[in-house]
Amino acid sequence: MRKIYLEDTPLREAQEQLVKRVRFSPEVEVIPTPQALGRVTAQPIYANVSMPNYHASAMDGIAVKAEKTYGADEQHPVRLKRGEDYVVVDTGDPIPDGYDAVIMIENIHQIDEETVEILEPAAPWQHIRPIGEDVVVGEVIVPDRYKLRPVDLGALLAGGNVTVPVLRKPRVAIIPTGTELIPPAEHVTEGEIIEFNGTVFAAYLQEWGAEPVYCGIVPDDYGLIKEAVQAAVRNADIVLVNAGSSAGREDFTVHVLEELGEVLTHGVATRPGKPVVVGIVEGKPVIGLPGYPVSAYLNLEWFARLLVHHYYGLTEPQRQRIKATVGRRIVSVMGAEDFIRVTIGYIDGQYIANPLTRSAGVTMSMVRADGLLRIPPGHLGYEQGEIAEVELYRPLEQIHNTIVATGSHDLSMDVLHSLVRKANPRRFLVSSHVGSMGGILAIQKGEAHIAGVHLFDEATGSYNLPFVEKYLRNRDIVLVQLVYRQQGWIVKQGNPLRIGTVRDLARPGITYINRQRGAGTRLLFDYLLKQEGIDREQIYGYSREAVSHLSVAAAVAGGTADVGLGIYSAATAMGLDFIPVAEERYDLLMSGAFYRSSEGQELLECIRSPEFARQVEALGGYSCRDAGRIVYAPRSSSRA
Amino acid sequence: MRKIYLEDTPLREAQEQLVKRVRFSPEVEVIPTPQALGRVTAQPIYANVSMPNYHASAMDGIAVKAEKTYGADEQHPVRLKRGEDYVVVDTGDPIPDGYDAVIMIENIHQIDEETVEILEPAAPWQHIRPIGEDVVVGEVIVPDRYKLRPVDLGALLAGGNVTVPVLRKPRVAIIPTGTELIPPAEHVTEGEIIEFNGTVFAAYLQEWGAEPVYCGIVPDDYGLIKEAVQAAVRNADIVLVNAGSSAGREDFTVHVLEELGEVLTHGVATRPGKPVVVGIVEGKPVIGLPGYPVSAYLNLEWFARLLVHHYYGLTEPQRQRIKATVGRRIVSVMGAEDFIRVTIGYIDGQYIANPLTRSAGVTMSMVRADGLLRIPPGHLGYEQGEIAEVELYRPLEQIHNTIVATGSHDLSMDVLHSLVRKANPRRFLVSSHVGSMGGILAIQKGEAHIAGVHLFDEATGSYNLPFVEKYLRNRDIVLVQLVYRQQGWIVKQGNPLRIGTVRDLARPGITYINRQRGAGTRLLFDYLLKQEGIDREQIYGYSREAVSHLSVAAAVAGGTADVGLGIYSAATAMGLDFIPVAEERYDLLMSGAFYRSSEGQELLECIRSPEFARQVEALGGYSCRDAGRIVYAPRSSSRA
Repeated sequence: MRKIYLEDTPLREAQEQLVKRVRFSPEVEVIPTPQALGRVTAQPIYANVSMPNYHASAMDGIAVKAEKTYGADEQHPVRLKRGEDYVVVDTGDPIPDGYDAVIMIENIHQIDEETVEILEPAAPWQHIRPIGEDVVVGEVIVPDRYKLRPVDLGALLAGGNVTVPVLRKPRVAIIPTGTELIPPAEHVTEGEIIEFNGTVFAAYLQEWGAEPVYCGIVPDDYGLIKEAVQAAVRNADIVLVNAGSSAGREDFTVHVLEELGEVLTHGVATRPGKPVVVGIVEGKPVIGLPGYPVSAYLNLEWFARLLVHHYYGLTEPQRQRIKATVGRRIVSVMGAEDFIRVTIGYIDGQYIANPLTRSAGVTMSMVRADGLLRIPPGHLGYEQGEIAEVELYRPLEQIHNTIVATGSHDLSMDVLHSLVRKANPRRFLVSSHVGSMGGILAIQKGEAHIAGVHLFDEATGSYNLPFVEKYLRNRDIVLVQLVYRQQGWIVKQGNPLRIGTVRDLARPGITYINRQRGAGTRLLFDYLLKQEGIDREQIYGYSREAVSHLSVAAAVAGGTADVGLGIYSAATAMGLDFIPVAEERYDLLMSGAFYRSSEGQELLECIRSPEFARQVEALGGYSCRDAGRIVYAPRSSSRA
Repeated sequence: MRKIYLEDTPLREAQEQLVKRVRFSPEVEVIPTPQALGRVTAQPIYANVSMPNYHASAMDGIAVKAEKTYGADEQHPVRLKRGEDYVVVDTGDPIPDGYDAVIMIENIHQIDEETVEILEPAAPWQHIRPIGEDVVVGEVIVPDRYKLRPVDLGALLAGGNVTVPVLRKPRVAIIPTGTELIPPAEHVTEGEIIEFNGTVFAAYLQEWGAEPVYCGIVPDDYGLIKEAVQAAVRNADIVLVNAGSSAGREDFTVHVLEELGEVLTHGVATRPGKPVVVGIVEGKPVIGLPGYPVSAYLNLEWFARLLVHHYYGLTEPQRQRIKATVGRRIVSVMGAEDFIRVTIGYIDGQYIANPLTRSAGVTMSMVRADGLLRIPPGHLGYEQGEIAEVELYRPLEQIHNTIVATGSHDLSMDVLHSLVRKANPRRFLVSSHVGSMGGILAIQKGEAHIAGVHLFDEATGSYNLPFVEKYLRNRDIVLVQLVYRQQGWIVKQGNPLRIGTVRDLARPGITYINRQRGAGTRLLFDYLLKQEGIDREQIYGYSREAVSHLSVAAAVAGGTADVGLGIYSAATAMGLDFIPVAEERYDLLMSGAFYRSSEGQELLECIRSPEFARQVEALGGYSCRDAGRIVYAPRSSSRA
């Protein structure tokens, strides 16, 4: 097993070295101006004609000879004859030869068909747009190396530039490699992975003004990858090889580049994104991108986006940045540049950034991220409450319109999201799953608008309220009932292991999958164990934690666990069986400010709608009786 | 002459009324996911498969049965047999049945071909990506009414969504009207105008996610325009009629809408942009846009962009806004909402906004504008030095990289711009023309980096330096020589009026075109008049002002003037003759800070390059001897 190690080259250094080594000589193509949106000019563009190319009336009225109007005033009106002293003109009409001013229609008294009277003289050239008022022939309309916007196309045409010389778009070859990859397909069998990174690369490259050239999937074979790179280098300006960029047994990219050209960098000091290969083959840059989606997309931006802009000679546009309060501690390792995907909540006038998973394999974390928080190499991270700069992945308006939900996960929240958007499509609802206790803490710290909670209190035998009274006493918060739901054992179809009560879980050979600490479902399980006097040690798998009902069901479906505690709909979504254990109340906790806001009232209307009950109960295992009931509110908040 | 008057409806009111009246019911189309970039989802999209859909190794190493590794430590290494206790796996490989943990290659000691030794136990499920780690079947990947970004396409494919239901793009019909309009053509005769607004509309609509449908040009004829609107309403979701939206004799749009449907608004209280018609025909919104380009583009954004986002149910993204210092007084009229195109200079760490022309007919003002400054109806404008909010038309990076030039206009500045961009394509140079005295004042007030000046001092018989000493005494500024240039009479080809000296200009029947106050060329002309003892009153046209050499030449070429004073290259650009009068020195004045900056030194290198001299002297009428000479610098600035 051959093993080579990755470097820890600072990102900036790797970028500068690459740019220094690559010289592009873009070809020029002359294209029709109406098709040139977003293209980059190859030279300064001068006006060929003036706009207007004749003296034009700037008003509706009459064209006159100014000197014939001199002396006109209230006492001495001047009369003008049509065809001799004046001509009727509309805005934009050419001024006939011999005329040199326009009088607005409002200032004319019609005497008869042929005669008008005026009470004021006209100054020469008044209300006339002279030749070239807009564009003068010979004038520079746009400079070279300039990205054309809609209005620039208008000015080019106005200046008589029907075609425009632009730089050919850089061709960027995308070579997906991996024996397990298949093209997008409806059915995927075990061991197969749909090749989707290439689609993401192509879409980004289009946005940046490049022309993606998607090469077919190449299996993990040194010779085939080498051939693919050689072919791509001949046809493209930039080559991307996806996966196989690290230092493992089947990571061929670095060796291919060493054989065909030169490796500049293998490994950058970033987390994620470290295993990248940057090389040059026949003068063309070749980037070996990591297979994990998040690492791949970040490196794409760091290197491919840089190269596309370098090709055009343009500055890379920066994403909008905001200052946000860090909602949860973020730890960084000295020496590496960390890139943390974060959600951003706009809560009580503050931006709150919370880290998402740092796993580079989770594409969904890029979908969910509102922004990216960069931690420089010499920095140890952020404590909760510190202010950090975040680069936005979404428009700020969308963040302002987003209801931030946290706490326990429940499928009824997805239904609610749909209904909220149907009622007001500008509104978004974003959920993160931190368990019921996590939800209470998030509301306490002002990190979320709403939190789903289902916490059973052994002492009182009731749900949620005792916890709210304990942790949020005297706080301006409101507790709203959402749904009753069944919790039960999620087991394989047909329940082959005959699981009935919690006692069955302690049987030898039974593997359990638990929920994370702070989850209401875990508290329920602990309560069930305690009732039966069963020790945690007796449950094989007690320490393996899943973060959602669906993850629990996925573990059972995947065969790594025999049973887990969860909700009915998660079991059916995975084609599993469900053995009811208990009905629990799932409530929404929210700040008083949110409850009283228009967003809050919109949300409440959705919760109380018959449509919500219909859709949630159709999932199975739910009852929406009392949905929207105010369980708890300080006197001042009560409105229901 | 029929005359109806425009309303002064507040813009916001007109927008709200329109949105209230229009209900879109977008059709749904199912398209391949890789083609869905920028499209808007028609429903929430759930994952069809989990990603990964098998337990996969997260590392290069060996898959083991965790329980066989228990008890391993330095004193008690555990040996494992290949095929029995372990299987070699690479990152991404499926974990074979019966195995439940992965040990990294780094932590394995190879004993022989078949045997490895480990010194640490493996925890169950360590280094394994469980089924659904990225995407779990049944999970919502993206909500409905959501604009798909590159990374969203990746997540959709990862979740097995090979196609995606999206809203059909709204079709927006564009009907250009005007008898004077012609399609883009190389040659334009007098009275013809290239139809370019439609191209600009189509490009904006594409950027906003709509499908523009360009209808042919329709002459100014009530019946034909009515037919075009009827046809468009049948095929499109939104209809735009361009020009004819005001209240003049040939402004048919409002009457067509009254006959076919209903007019909601005719005239909004904005400057520019007032003459817009907003109506509904057969439930479809029809917008009559003004003919003047600036009014047209602003109204397009106010109404068409609004409707496209209303169609999708999306919030309109806002442009980035910055606070800028107002460089020149901006006057607003009470009651109207003013939209002022401005340039923005980034000078000594401050953003300085200067108004461009307010004429709605000047497309180039939209090209040149860095941003838009809005003055609310109840506001009287800004004094110089006040802070105003500006909406950016360009990326801020570009503004940071722009050298702001002002003062007198000279063609050598265009050459310099080209060379600056060739040396560093990220750099821009933007010129506004305010005359030499205006340039001195701009440098004095810190509104520009450099200013072109050519001011003749009668007392000393020298150029520029006496003015600098008078107006910028003790200031940290540097004066750099750019070119010597010939000023002369710009006359028709063959000089038919036999103009030689300034005396000839006082002849009856000769029409002069002057330059604006503060222009060096005007001072020169005044000096010539004084030398000959000629009174200004004797010069017909003395009070008509053009703002550049090219505009002077355009006036002569267009026949509205017989002669003007200007430079050789402006005359030849327009095919005119040139009678030399004087050689003058055109210098660049700059702040010391700019002179010492890297931008300043880059600029100086360009000025001193043989390429600059070659290109400028090729224009004719120039000498670049001494180009780049430091004429004046405080001791501390001197570097040359």
